[in-house]
Amino acid sequence: MPHITLPEGEAGIVSLMLAYPEARRPINDLCNAIMCGPSSLTTAERELIATYVSHGNQCHYCTSSHAAAARELLGEQAPLLDRVLCDLATSGLDDKMKALLGIAGKARVDGRHVTADDVAQARAAGADDKAIHDTVLITAMFCMFNRYVEGLGTNAPPDLEFYKASGKRIATLGYGSRFRDT
Amino acid sequence: MPHITLPEGEAGIVSLMLAYPEARRPINDLCNAIMCGPSSLTTAERELIATYVSHGNQCHYCTSSHAAAARELLGEQAPLLDRVLCDLATSGLDDKMKALLGIAGKARVDGRHVTADDVAQARAAGADDKAIHDTVLITAMFCMFNRYVEGLGTNAPPDLEFYKASGKRIATLGYGSRFRDT
Repeated sequence: MPHITLPEGEAGIVSLMLAYPEARRPINDLCNAIMCGPSSLTTAERELIATYVSHGNQCHYCTSSHAAAARELLGEQAPLLDRVLCDLATSGLDDKMKALLGIAGKARVDGRHVTADDVAQARAAGADDKAIHDTVLITAMFCMFNRYVEGLGTNAPPDLEFYKASGKRIATLGYGSRFRDT
Repeated sequence: MPHITLPEGEAGIVSLMLAYPEARRPINDLCNAIMCGPSSLTTAERELIATYVSHGNQCHYCTSSHAAAARELLGEQAPLLDRVLCDLATSGLDDKMKALLGIAGKARVDGRHVTADDVAQARAAGADDKAIHDTVLITAMFCMFNRYVEGLGTNAPPDLEFYKASGKRIATLGYGSRFRDT
């Protein structure tokens, strides 16, 4: 049960955005800028980072939502996502994304854990400054969302079917499309 | 040394906002909405939460910046901030803010650590839904900022004098005033 009064029948960050609209527009703007805007990372790669971080933080709502978005964007490559969440080393992910997820895994715990060597390894595998920036910012953003959603005890339906529609909406329309008329 | 190329002579999140303006406006909008907008918490109380969380995450840049803002807003009560950072229990802070910082301290580590009892204690001390919401969101936001700033290895001048001007600017003009003409 949520720790504060939230709209019945709504879950996760959507329930918070309905009850506290003051945070809704800037949060969706930030997501659209960083998750969907110009970057040397594809939108699928960025959703993969969001899912990886949320999974590390054991946030069921965010993991399921962004896994659904990543699967939409990955298309035939979708099984890669499950292999990454199971074991990054043997997942078959390319070296650039492996190095970036290594950085994400460290920054998720503590930003100070990211070393010059971690960054050099990502660069050697083809990551540019924007990819490194976006990896760290996406990690930081999802450390925020995971805590916002979990810290207020929001609902998170266990059934993964629940998350498919929002995953498709994120993949095709970006963030906040549900609220654009309000 | 920063892990990516950032403007010389700039520090912390300001150096990131100069190099990556795509995140600047939504981040400042989020801060203005939650740190300065309508709330049952005073702006001093909100800056106190931001400082407490950043101090817990050992982010020197964010702690120093928001301690400077909190000191500006606390005025004669400024010594309370140092007592809170040293030992919350014996700080002399009122029970409502003590309970909310208890929630912040837990959500900083993991949102799932916040219990119904923690929230009941804050309510019994006078916190309403908006205060509980803002406490968790501010905690989550600073878990983002701390990781963004530290994960990219941004500069953080050791001298606390450096942070006074930005603290005063936040306390009097809100967030992002430095960028409003750009």
